[in-house]
Amino acid sequence: MTDITQRINTIGSQARTAARTLAASDGTARNQALEFMAQRLWEDRAALQEANKRDLAQAEADGISPAMIDRLRLTDKVIQGMADGVREVMALPDPVGEITEMRPRPNGMLVGRMRVPLGVIGIIYESRPNVTADAAALCVKSGNAVILRGGSEAWHSNRAIAERLALGLRAANLPAEAVQFIDTTDRAAVGALLKSDRHVDVIIPRGGKGLIQRVIEESHIPVIKHLDGICHTYVDRYADLAMAEELTFNGKMQRTGVCNATETLLVHEAVAETFLPAMAKRLVSAGCELRGCERTRAILGNEIPVTPVTPEDYDTEHLAAILSVRVVPSLTEAIAHIAAHSSQHTETIVTRDHPRAMRFLREVDSSAVMVNASTRFNDGFQFGLGAEMGISTDKLHVRGPVGLEGLTCLKYIVLGDGQLRQ
Amino acid sequence: MTDITQRINTIGSQARTAARTLAASDGTARNQALEFMAQRLWEDRAALQEANKRDLAQAEADGISPAMIDRLRLTDKVIQGMADGVREVMALPDPVGEITEMRPRPNGMLVGRMRVPLGVIGIIYESRPNVTADAAALCVKSGNAVILRGGSEAWHSNRAIAERLALGLRAANLPAEAVQFIDTTDRAAVGALLKSDRHVDVIIPRGGKGLIQRVIEESHIPVIKHLDGICHTYVDRYADLAMAEELTFNGKMQRTGVCNATETLLVHEAVAETFLPAMAKRLVSAGCELRGCERTRAILGNEIPVTPVTPEDYDTEHLAAILSVRVVPSLTEAIAHIAAHSSQHTETIVTRDHPRAMRFLREVDSSAVMVNASTRFNDGFQFGLGAEMGISTDKLHVRGPVGLEGLTCLKYIVLGDGQLRQ
Repeated sequence: MTDITQRINTIGSQARTAARTLAASDGTARNQALEFMAQRLWEDRAALQEANKRDLAQAEADGISPAMIDRLRLTDKVIQGMADGVREVMALPDPVGEITEMRPRPNGMLVGRMRVPLGVIGIIYESRPNVTADAAALCVKSGNAVILRGGSEAWHSNRAIAERLALGLRAANLPAEAVQFIDTTDRAAVGALLKSDRHVDVIIPRGGKGLIQRVIEESHIPVIKHLDGICHTYVDRYADLAMAEELTFNGKMQRTGVCNATETLLVHEAVAETFLPAMAKRLVSAGCELRGCERTRAILGNEIPVTPVTPEDYDTEHLAAILSVRVVPSLTEAIAHIAAHSSQHTETIVTRDHPRAMRFLREVDSSAVMVNASTRFNDGFQFGLGAEMGISTDKLHVRGPVGLEGLTCLKYIVLGDGQLRQ
Repeated sequence: MTDITQRINTIGSQARTAARTLAASDGTARNQALEFMAQRLWEDRAALQEANKRDLAQAEADGISPAMIDRLRLTDKVIQGMADGVREVMALPDPVGEITEMRPRPNGMLVGRMRVPLGVIGIIYESRPNVTADAAALCVKSGNAVILRGGSEAWHSNRAIAERLALGLRAANLPAEAVQFIDTTDRAAVGALLKSDRHVDVIIPRGGKGLIQRVIEESHIPVIKHLDGICHTYVDRYADLAMAEELTFNGKMQRTGVCNATETLLVHEAVAETFLPAMAKRLVSAGCELRGCERTRAILGNEIPVTPVTPEDYDTEHLAAILSVRVVPSLTEAIAHIAAHSSQHTETIVTRDHPRAMRFLREVDSSAVMVNASTRFNDGFQFGLGAEMGISTDKLHVRGPVGLEGLTCLKYIVLGDGQLRQ
């Protein structure tokens, strides 16, 4: 066993023990810990900013772009936001211990299910340091221990934040080991974590495609992941076209660098000539590049600049003001296009026709399927989950926004009075 | 790409297309297919028995034990049982399309979830040929396509059964490709299947530990698995001792070679001297070997033969008439023993004390946790799920018996009237 493996093993084993205590704790104690965490973050902000300075200096030395450096900076406002986020999670209903579906069996015993924490959650992230607090708060609220592995560019900041979170747990008489921070930038630590199936119940990677691919390939532990967001807005022949224009514009342009932004617009041929010119003009004026199929380009002619769309475009998450546009002959073809190219994240149909809306809802296989709403709504806060750990494009366990429920599971419980198996 | 990889790829791609049709089909069509499947199995029993003869001849040539050969044999009764099993699955409520939790958001859109099939399910099994029919029926009922890979010892029988199931689908105008049989005994086919993440949504291995370990190590696809069944019966200090004796005896001896049989008996020290002598006598008379801790052996003295228990015993699924027995000083210690040694399958407490029962239910982290009931009840039929694909000892997605619900997932659905993200 290498040093790193041994270290990850120790961390995992401590987390496992802490998870048992947390799972047995009541919600009041976990809420108390969250309040103390929020307090520590805010009150120790000078120390956090001191640690942050070291990351910022390193980033400057490495020639990181000013925009990226800005994302790294722990201003008072960012720290206040982290503390507020922890308190928002605290205010959510406790998911642990809920008992559902208790039903009597013919022999008199009651069989149902109880919601319980998953146990130990490993989170590997490349994002801003506030993820350290957000992710840990969701885990603690749902009774899980968490092992955090942040990106090296925010290493000092992440460590300083994680230390405050552990102090918050201890202040509430809960084990500080329920929030563990992997205290090394050695990449081998990730490999060791991905093989700790004895101590870790689920891995949640948050970052770019490279990270997620590595996790899928190396992990012996179940993974909850979000790969791509190739989302579609389909304007049906029976759409309210004014609404369709607003929804398409909102889906594509309200924010472009996010996973639930629309990447491809599908338009039924019966309305394409009426709908596309005004729509295209509005998008192009707002700075959106259009990439169209032949029929789209024929309809828009020479007046509106439309690059020919390539097969690769249909399979690409641009995360930019670029929209692929395709005219389709039918709802069936729209559904087939989505089945072939979607990343199963979010799709919406704009239509006034009830049977067609219901067919789209049923046949499109994505984490969120919508009727007459913007793809941008696929989000934990927007769906009312309160907060999220990310959006899962997996099918098993949890699809869509991963809130507190996604961090728990249901075990069977049986209440008998001496029943024997015949 | 090797020949095998290409073949698995074709099978996967056909299954994916068939899965889309099945997911969009209504429950009546799927039930019709199941009825036709049942008919084909029974009416073509002579052909099934012809294929079966080839497997039996091979088994005899290989010197397989008569008991194993018997398990392989497709008698009229076994075939009737398969057909009945398919009809039982047919009679279950359709899980597909159920919509739950539709709640309005402040902006007026409704957000809820719809239950949908997982898609394509790969099943790798070593068991008796009837699994071919059982597993396929559950998949078709829940709107999934299935790729079956049976053991080589039942190869001809499995293939003949799978062919009849495909005929049943076709007779109901559903795609025959929704039930695929991997038509080669080449072991490389399993490897190729485990890497088909584009075409296969989940792998369910059903077989011995070797198979399951291989699947965990090689699969890039999520796995629903059942590893060990190291189940505990804990007799609390406040137990009704007559009930405790019945539950222990039933849990251990009602059937010994099964995953939900009790492997370890934990007894609170306050009742050990009263409880153990009669209990031990009854078990030993019934042919059960006892392996006890020091205190157990001291209590039972020289009259009842008790081998010393080893640390390995506590971690072993004996699947035989062998019971480890340990006297514990407290409920806390019983829970700690279970946390250290259980395979998180099934545990039961025998007690009359309500707070202790609730604590056990909450703190023991297993797929089924019981009060005053036999561990032998952790089973799809006993829990009222109708039928099961196995018992999951995983925590993600599904714990305990995997019925139709475990073969589906929930996607978010949104019903709007033009809502835009602010």
